[in-house]
Amino acid sequence: MPNPKSAPSDIAALIEAIFHPRSIAVVGASANPNTPGYDYVSSLQKFGFSGDLYPVNPRAEEILGLPAFPSLRDVPGQVDYVISCIPAAAVLELVDDCAAKGARALQLFTARFSETGREEDAELERRLSQRAREAGVRIIGPNCLGLLYPRQGISFRADMPRQPGNVGFLSQSGNLLFELTYLAGPRGLRFSKAISYGNGLDLNEADFLDYFAQDAESALVGAYVEGVRDGRRFLAALKRAAARKPVVVLKGGRTAAGGRAAASHTAALAGRHAVWTAAVTQAGAISVDTVEELIDMLIAFAYMRPGSGRRLGMVGGGGGRSVLTADLCEELGLSVPTLPDDIVRRIAEKAPDLAGWVTNPVDQSILAGSGVSGAQVLEWMDESPDIDLLLANVGEAWALGRPNAESLLARIPERFAQVSRRTRKPMAVVIGPSDYADERLWRLVSEAREKLVKAEVALFPSVERAVRALARFVEYWERSEVSRP
Amino acid sequence: MPNPKSAPSDIAALIEAIFHPRSIAVVGASANPNTPGYDYVSSLQKFGFSGDLYPVNPRAEEILGLPAFPSLRDVPGQVDYVISCIPAAAVLELVDDCAAKGARALQLFTARFSETGREEDAELERRLSQRAREAGVRIIGPNCLGLLYPRQGISFRADMPRQPGNVGFLSQSGNLLFELTYLAGPRGLRFSKAISYGNGLDLNEADFLDYFAQDAESALVGAYVEGVRDGRRFLAALKRAAARKPVVVLKGGRTAAGGRAAASHTAALAGRHAVWTAAVTQAGAISVDTVEELIDMLIAFAYMRPGSGRRLGMVGGGGGRSVLTADLCEELGLSVPTLPDDIVRRIAEKAPDLAGWVTNPVDQSILAGSGVSGAQVLEWMDESPDIDLLLANVGEAWALGRPNAESLLARIPERFAQVSRRTRKPMAVVIGPSDYADERLWRLVSEAREKLVKAEVALFPSVERAVRALARFVEYWERSEVSRP
Repeated sequence: MPNPKSAPSDIAALIEAIFHPRSIAVVGASANPNTPGYDYVSSLQKFGFSGDLYPVNPRAEEILGLPAFPSLRDVPGQVDYVISCIPAAAVLELVDDCAAKGARALQLFTARFSETGREEDAELERRLSQRAREAGVRIIGPNCLGLLYPRQGISFRADMPRQPGNVGFLSQSGNLLFELTYLAGPRGLRFSKAISYGNGLDLNEADFLDYFAQDAESALVGAYVEGVRDGRRFLAALKRAAARKPVVVLKGGRTAAGGRAAASHTAALAGRHAVWTAAVTQAGAISVDTVEELIDMLIAFAYMRPGSGRRLGMVGGGGGRSVLTADLCEELGLSVPTLPDDIVRRIAEKAPDLAGWVTNPVDQSILAGSGVSGAQVLEWMDESPDIDLLLANVGEAWALGRPNAESLLARIPERFAQVSRRTRKPMAVVIGPSDYADERLWRLVSEAREKLVKAEVALFPSVERAVRALARFVEYWERSEVSRP
Repeated sequence: MPNPKSAPSDIAALIEAIFHPRSIAVVGASANPNTPGYDYVSSLQKFGFSGDLYPVNPRAEEILGLPAFPSLRDVPGQVDYVISCIPAAAVLELVDDCAAKGARALQLFTARFSETGREEDAELERRLSQRAREAGVRIIGPNCLGLLYPRQGISFRADMPRQPGNVGFLSQSGNLLFELTYLAGPRGLRFSKAISYGNGLDLNEADFLDYFAQDAESALVGAYVEGVRDGRRFLAALKRAAARKPVVVLKGGRTAAGGRAAASHTAALAGRHAVWTAAVTQAGAISVDTVEELIDMLIAFAYMRPGSGRRLGMVGGGGGRSVLTADLCEELGLSVPTLPDDIVRRIAEKAPDLAGWVTNPVDQSILAGSGVSGAQVLEWMDESPDIDLLLANVGEAWALGRPNAESLLARIPERFAQVSRRTRKPMAVVIGPSDYADERLWRLVSEAREKLVKAEVALFPSVERAVRALARFVEYWERSEVSRP
């Protein structure tokens, strides 16, 4: 077994191999659809895993159309990767079986180790660690969901996104990966690879950071961490990763109550938060405090062009919204300059009536019927040397009440997408949730969003969140040494 | 015309009368569906306004099935309320027509007064003010959408919510009322009455506050204000209103850039923000900075039971979410105590395995398959004297991946709704946006939300926003002198 002080490149090579198994065994596989032993087999099938797949269960002959084997040792061929869904009491023996089959890694969905807070469970975890080290089997988990790698057809649940993206993610919580999928999937969050690693007994946050740092399929990295095994090693790995690409880190267990919850969740020992945030920032990464912030920063880095100027131009939305946006921008350190002279002139040419009245942010209700559209002003802002950042609000609350709602909600996103495709400035587009009880409304807004997602636009569900993300994004590129792609 | 220093009760009586017109004339009515002159007539018809409705347009004989009149003076009967969609240049004459017809109030959708920043437009506004005062006609606006009063069948746009609620709202921006409708309608935000008052030339924020303070149909009041005509009078009215019911105030134009935008929106002169916030809080109202916060506090006050204890109990969601929620609660001044002893005992009776492991917030993934549900623990928390606040997360990101997603998403909201109906503690329920591209997912989550809305549950789209709202809600009831209903 590799030494825990292996070079980052050795660890990265090891994890790369783990992500490319030729064969997978699911120990504790089940034909009962309401069990994890079913989920793993079924997900690998549905995601199209092309290697050999072996369900292991002493009480089944066949599971999901595949022959089942009584034990791992009974599997005829080579097994590179083993997933365990059996009770904790049986895992020590499973480690030996893994060694006998030459498996590279064992991922334990199996839980009830140190996180229960009981001494006998903590003792079992220590023995598991020792046995695995002796046997040369690397452990992912215990108490985790394991690997997601859409390109290789690997998933732990059938409802994770199958389309691959550019976000590498490591998470101490598996549930958080479902949450990210449901909350941010509609906005286009897609993973290159993700790892749920639970208690992180062997391979842990530092190892996965080293892996994602060099992974060409991951343009950025997100992390949810409750506690770290070795603070110094983690920060060194974080610094290495952050020197190569944006890394966004959400820390759980920042307070006494959160720390108590973390102990019962993944047995993590939480540290002092202020120190943590300073250290993460010092390492060149982005520290966030909520799932909403995490999602927004992942979307920003996945889809926006890098840029560090602070002068924002905005179109879309009525007067109240324009005023509030200008306020929030200034409060967060962005500037909202008056409209550049050449844009004022171009508006005056097309709509003499509006000369000197339209300002930035552009109030959509002033433009209405003038012959100058918000999208047109956005294009001019894109060309202007006096504007650094673009914010475009679809403004469906206004559009849906118009008799031509259908055509507005087709045309506006299309124009915004065109600007987003060609601009070299950071650009955010706002479209609200399509969570209407009315099917027509849902469909109109949902289809508009889908179009924007396909065009790889950076989407935010509210102006507030877009502005906050833009402010942090710009701040990052001001201080970052990561070369801009 | 009443003296501007009229007693609050006189103003309230006047506005009450304005909200109950026996007849309405729309001057500048139109048969073109893409005009405000069409929107007003059509909305009043669709909302079922039962009084007389008179379209006025010299170039039409009939509009939307109603006979049209060449001028206001040609209308045969009494006209209580006049809506103007004609150009600014014609409004002085219209004021005289209103006086001749004995109209109580004139609402001007008509814009392009002081907000354009041009001296001739500001001068016209001054003349309008003087002419109306001389003629004894009260003005709502100009540059506004006017009244919404679903119970009386009054609206300015057909897509505003028709079901009446308990939120009275005054807004300097009309567009903000659409935004609130689309963003918060799916969560159950319903207006008793709302007023968009634009430039507030005559009747203004102080008058409407005095009205809503005594309006029995409004249990709480929301306000979006860009600038106030008379700071001292506004604060006095705010204090009177806040002494009777919760008042949530969002201020636009807090910064230099926001102030510039406000000037071109409603010609408002913005003040210093820190002073404003202190004064609003001092008056007993709740000051918010974003539309998201505004919506969340309106939902909280519309649906949650009052209460000031800070000990929160939470169920639903996986381990990561539990940890992060505990963190956020403590950071915002709520406490997340360990599970009360009697609940620990009751869990141990039903699921001996989990004894001493489950903590607060309750990690849904630990309970899975144990025979103890999150809803069961929530009921125990409701009964416990050691818990003051309830937070229940539907956790659809977990449920949607289960084979019994349909039944989970029927049962969980139903149980939560039962607790919400009977609890005497402030209780928030979290269900995420149903903004999925997939129709089945949209329908499942959307129907679950609809059930919760019908049960009058306080709904939040994310745990983060629920916790923030709970913290501010509790803070309010700690210092408020409003008697708890």
